[in-house]
Amino acid sequence: MLYSKQFAKTNKNAKEFESKNATLLIKAGFIDQVMAGVYIYLPLGVRVLSKIETIIREEMDKIASEVFMSSLAPQAIWEQTKRLHTIDVLMKTTPANDVSKAKNDNEYVLSPTHEDMVTPLAQKFYKSYKDFPFAVYQIQTKFRNEPRAKSGLLRCREFRMKDLYSFHTSEADLLTFYEKAKEAYWNVFNRIGIGPFTKIVLASGGDFTRNFSHEYQTLCSAGEDTIFYAKSKDIAYNREIAPSEAPKIEQSEEIAPLEEVPGEGIIGVEALAQFLKIPVEKTTKTILFETETGTVVAAAVRGDYEINELKLLKVLGCQSLKLASAATVKRVTNAEIGYAGILNLPADVTVIMDDSLQGRVNFEMGANKTNYHSINVNFERDLQLPSQFYDIKLAKQGDLYPETGEEYEVLKMAEVGNIFPLETKFSKAFDYRYLDENGKEQPIYMGSYGIGPSRVMGVLVEVFSDEKGLVWPESVAPYQVHLVGLDLKDETVRAYAFEVYEILGKQGIEVLFDDRIDVTAGAKFADADLIGIPHRLVVSRRLEKKIEYKKRTEKESKIIELEDVKKIM
Amino acid sequence: MLYSKQFAKTNKNAKEFESKNATLLIKAGFIDQVMAGVYIYLPLGVRVLSKIETIIREEMDKIASEVFMSSLAPQAIWEQTKRLHTIDVLMKTTPANDVSKAKNDNEYVLSPTHEDMVTPLAQKFYKSYKDFPFAVYQIQTKFRNEPRAKSGLLRCREFRMKDLYSFHTSEADLLTFYEKAKEAYWNVFNRIGIGPFTKIVLASGGDFTRNFSHEYQTLCSAGEDTIFYAKSKDIAYNREIAPSEAPKIEQSEEIAPLEEVPGEGIIGVEALAQFLKIPVEKTTKTILFETETGTVVAAAVRGDYEINELKLLKVLGCQSLKLASAATVKRVTNAEIGYAGILNLPADVTVIMDDSLQGRVNFEMGANKTNYHSINVNFERDLQLPSQFYDIKLAKQGDLYPETGEEYEVLKMAEVGNIFPLETKFSKAFDYRYLDENGKEQPIYMGSYGIGPSRVMGVLVEVFSDEKGLVWPESVAPYQVHLVGLDLKDETVRAYAFEVYEILGKQGIEVLFDDRIDVTAGAKFADADLIGIPHRLVVSRRLEKKIEYKKRTEKESKIIELEDVKKIM
Repeated sequence: MLYSKQFAKTNKNAKEFESKNATLLIKAGFIDQVMAGVYIYLPLGVRVLSKIETIIREEMDKIASEVFMSSLAPQAIWEQTKRLHTIDVLMKTTPANDVSKAKNDNEYVLSPTHEDMVTPLAQKFYKSYKDFPFAVYQIQTKFRNEPRAKSGLLRCREFRMKDLYSFHTSEADLLTFYEKAKEAYWNVFNRIGIGPFTKIVLASGGDFTRNFSHEYQTLCSAGEDTIFYAKSKDIAYNREIAPSEAPKIEQSEEIAPLEEVPGEGIIGVEALAQFLKIPVEKTTKTILFETETGTVVAAAVRGDYEINELKLLKVLGCQSLKLASAATVKRVTNAEIGYAGILNLPADVTVIMDDSLQGRVNFEMGANKTNYHSINVNFERDLQLPSQFYDIKLAKQGDLYPETGEEYEVLKMAEVGNIFPLETKFSKAFDYRYLDENGKEQPIYMGSYGIGPSRVMGVLVEVFSDEKGLVWPESVAPYQVHLVGLDLKDETVRAYAFEVYEILGKQGIEVLFDDRIDVTAGAKFADADLIGIPHRLVVSRRLEKKIEYKKRTEKESKIIELEDVKKIM
Repeated sequence: MLYSKQFAKTNKNAKEFESKNATLLIKAGFIDQVMAGVYIYLPLGVRVLSKIETIIREEMDKIASEVFMSSLAPQAIWEQTKRLHTIDVLMKTTPANDVSKAKNDNEYVLSPTHEDMVTPLAQKFYKSYKDFPFAVYQIQTKFRNEPRAKSGLLRCREFRMKDLYSFHTSEADLLTFYEKAKEAYWNVFNRIGIGPFTKIVLASGGDFTRNFSHEYQTLCSAGEDTIFYAKSKDIAYNREIAPSEAPKIEQSEEIAPLEEVPGEGIIGVEALAQFLKIPVEKTTKTILFETETGTVVAAAVRGDYEINELKLLKVLGCQSLKLASAATVKRVTNAEIGYAGILNLPADVTVIMDDSLQGRVNFEMGANKTNYHSINVNFERDLQLPSQFYDIKLAKQGDLYPETGEEYEVLKMAEVGNIFPLETKFSKAFDYRYLDENGKEQPIYMGSYGIGPSRVMGVLVEVFSDEKGLVWPESVAPYQVHLVGLDLKDETVRAYAFEVYEILGKQGIEVLFDDRIDVTAGAKFADADLIGIPHRLVVSRRLEKKIEYKKRTEKESKIIELEDVKKIM
């Protein structure tokens, strides 16, 4: 491609965005922003995106059939799965004006994902155990009503998605396929070049499964996820579910007498610690919840932790939790909200204590008395030691991996893929069952598997770019070679540069040829660095028939013969 | 691909749709209907669609740079072009529920076309005359709020579109590019196989241009367009703008005395003709309009014609027309609506007579008197012959091409492409001008060029299918070869069939191998015909190592050697 003929250009002075990938991709002329979270792919960007999608397609073709579902969906299927009114990123379409409304007033869901569509689709075709397992995938544009969209291609309102769905006659068969999908995913990430920076991370299974889901997370400072990594076991958890143990606190002071001190309207453990002149670690956070059956739960963690509701749900084995109402708080604590502790609660309150409460002496706790806090609380004297401490805290930097006791490495990572055992959630919603060998109806197990090609493109920028600009891995670079022509006003040099361009093209090498005449060498080199094509070649008067060759990732260039270009790459 | 491993299957008993392409594509397992005008592409359909898009991409790459714009657009850009409230197929997005609304309540246009987005995009990059001309295109999903969507892939609410936009410093340069685009379009349609059935048709330029736009229309009975074709000049017009001359009517009767006859509440020329016992051709249709400047226009055509407002607008040289209000009708005719004629109208009414009024004697006309019709009206005696008759009628079967006097061939055709000189409409809306050699701002001319890949897929079915099913042209067939394995329970035959499958694959031939064991030969052949792959090969016990070969479009099969397959195709 001749640079002069390609639509769009680099613009070093383009606006700086919060996100590095947006800033660099826009400066280098790969994308343009339409509005927050919505981008146009310019020719260079189209090429990268298309190469990423081709790699994904090649790997998915090995395990599934490609389909292309619609973005518009009837609202009825989303009603059927009870997601129409609960999914917080869901958008729908409606006529844009009165003339449109007069012609067709229907509204449609604009799909952010396709479990709700693929399940009734599969149901139309396959019913017998002989037809299973099967899997379909698609690569298409998805829509999400993101509240904040400031991470460039990492979080968009409109984005590219590969989504795959598998159907099975048993959980065991689902898990067999799940492992094949993992392998396909590793192939994709390795081919794209982020394999070495990527980990499989255990994450919540949502309301689909008691099991974990798995995220593919890539190390990068722009990542929106915090990952807890236990090196000795090579196991990684998303913060939302990371099991954690609080590091022990050494306390050797004398046991002091229990006291109730007034402290009206002091909000937050930091303020409280300051007021009481104690470290935050001596405060206690007690939150009251109600389960779906009405049981009141008092959950307590050390003041410097937050309660992790997902963990608490698992400990309780209940379906849902909500914060206790003011009336309930009043009834069980005899106090207004803000002064709850776990001292002297009624017997019908389930008390769950986090392990972070352990080992402390003379600690603080809400007094269950409006405006009062208990200090110098001590286990055994004031509070019975529970039969068991639990892990109900949100993990934080410094926490230990309970299984080995080692301190977690805490990593910022960006999600590039996600695989999910859906179990029977969607098949049940559509009453989709298969007939077994005896003609008996049986539940169908499903899995769902996503990779966001546009998000991957953003992550590649976050991981590989340097201070000079983009740095593309070979496999997804928009072109393999950036040919810089200098002194092109000189007819001989110009003719030779075009000859080189054509010869490389005939060798099957994809070349972006900077054929601009009135641009300085410095500006051309800066553009080449900004655009980030892996191999740079220079043709100039001084070089005569030789070629200057430099890799984007190296500092030094060398002089080579034209016929060596193909070998050196 | 092994048929048994491919998602979806044929279903001969699937529902019959109004549209042949929907019926056959669904029965053959290429698509599935989600709702009216919204389809899922199944694996076979994905392959055809993707081949069509690849051909289009290859041809467009020769004249433009590929981009990928977003579907979501800010409402502001559609306000800027004054289209937000007037485009009757425009949809927008809105949060689907309260939780979504709480997070982001913005609404976005869901783009049915991209003039409104590409113009400000180009404006960001190019300003100097040196940068022009340039052109960009994209292939993507588009959305239209179609009121009726009963033509299968021919008219969808969600569909695939290739749209290209070009930018020029002069109308002459636009026209030069326009011819290059025409050539690229012919390449596409010829490669896809519909070239011989396709014509360039002149159509309205809309409010963009005084010139015509050009439609690529393909002959097929399901086509929604009526095309008037003048063979001697090889010129075709869309009915909406076809110039036409009414065939002369021979009338030799005696001139009769003018009369006013009562005829209250008789609606429509057919009823009137019956009531008056005259042929419809003797009735006259007079419609009163008002122009944007308030001029009242009386337009008259023979009773068996309709008035074509596009033609009338051109004759009048005005911007817009609306039907005259009841008050205006009353003022100029002294009668209620329904009794207007062109006898004795006030001098300030502009009277436009269609040529179809010519040559008649003793004809009917509204009497400009409530409940009365004039009969036995005659030119010269009752009504002055106008200085000129015009062509303001909607052309119909039997009409003549005015330039040659030949009768038009009237054809049902389906639009497969459309190219449009937008002139300066959109550049003006965004105040996008270029700087000429003297640094002076000048208007930018634009063109827009569309092909609908999914619509083309539907048209291919309408054109090529037969009573047995689909018939795909080689270039876009989902596979080149349909290999039917018979007697596959026999291990030897089965092994040989798989060997053939692999050998053909290694030769680079795309093969769909019907490897099902418990399906009869008859059912397999019927499926092969339904699916419509160009070449069918059979392996069976009886054939031993020979192959039975049949083309989808031929009746007779022949026995060949495996090594001849590649040659024969």
